[in-house]
Amino acid sequence: MKLLEERIVKDGKILPGDILKIDSFLNHQIDVKLMEEIGEEFYRLFKDKEPDKILTIESSGIAIAMMTSRNFGYIPVVFAKKTVAANMAAGAYEAKEHSYTRNIEYTVQVSREYLHEGDRVLIIDDFLANGEAMHALIRICDQAGAKVVGCGSVVCKTYQPGEQRIKDLGYDVEVLARVKAMTDDGQIEFE
Amino acid sequence: MKLLEERIVKDGKILPGDILKIDSFLNHQIDVKLMEEIGEEFYRLFKDKEPDKILTIESSGIAIAMMTSRNFGYIPVVFAKKTVAANMAAGAYEAKEHSYTRNIEYTVQVSREYLHEGDRVLIIDDFLANGEAMHALIRICDQAGAKVVGCGSVVCKTYQPGEQRIKDLGYDVEVLARVKAMTDDGQIEFE
Repeated sequence: MKLLEERIVKDGKILPGDILKIDSFLNHQIDVKLMEEIGEEFYRLFKDKEPDKILTIESSGIAIAMMTSRNFGYIPVVFAKKTVAANMAAGAYEAKEHSYTRNIEYTVQVSREYLHEGDRVLIIDDFLANGEAMHALIRICDQAGAKVVGCGSVVCKTYQPGEQRIKDLGYDVEVLARVKAMTDDGQIEFE
Repeated sequence: MKLLEERIVKDGKILPGDILKIDSFLNHQIDVKLMEEIGEEFYRLFKDKEPDKILTIESSGIAIAMMTSRNFGYIPVVFAKKTVAANMAAGAYEAKEHSYTRNIEYTVQVSREYLHEGDRVLIIDDFLANGEAMHALIRICDQAGAKVVGCGSVVCKTYQPGEQRIKDLGYDVEVLARVKAMTDDGQIEFE
């Protein structure tokens, strides 16, 4: 997605530890118009899959999932939670996720009330690095008997294993900006 | 907001500990169309305040803030974070918030890059109970020298102190559904 790549080049920052920081428009401050355009692009890529639910993970996936849903006729968005909430129903679907950025393990949860057998789920997230978060969401869909019809990520780094890992499981993965290399002098190259 | 009150009566659940659970359309699963209508209502209530930024807090505020922004010509949404992220810039604005639901203390953070002196900030959140989260967001705006032009909450319980606490500080508070009472047999009454 050309517009997104240009924005990453313009506003993205490379931090030590191979971190691509794009929180001026995606992860902390949000460019709402850009999210609409991202939502339209995901619709174009996945419309033939006919999802009837979007599953994402808090927090950064929510804005993207909201704007994607509008294009699919306002299908429900469900966001997985990363901590045990006091008011979550007992008996949630759960999967572990290791965050390499923060070096901690999360329990990812979705209430059994909001994911069912036969649901056609489009999984949407912001970053696909090692594929931990997306894989946790897939396992949660498996537990529910829901069908994952597609996996969309806004950004991935093609030299990290996440994208291939999810494709190797047999899923249709679409990424809007595929970072091939980030250099020490701040250059970002796309595939 | 009539439509919202009807939805709370239809789908809200009262849990022990005076908890109103509306996560079938707001806090876990999201009704995207309803969020659009909530965004239009916040626009109607705050359009004269001419905000140029929306500040909310992860995770449940994000969906509401996104849909509110669209009505204000796509002004940026900034969501405050509740934990210290490894890739957050050093020197963020910070405020403490005590969560009564979970009985823990959060540090609420906003990067100095995304809140500035002179910004006209509309604060949006899902629940206004004791006002802890909203008060933390106000203090963060104070630190930045930003002007809080309004505070919007989707739901409050009028018998909890949050709404009055924020009004007593001199802020314009608007709430879309004001719960007056919740009874043991599951009835919800609005003001």
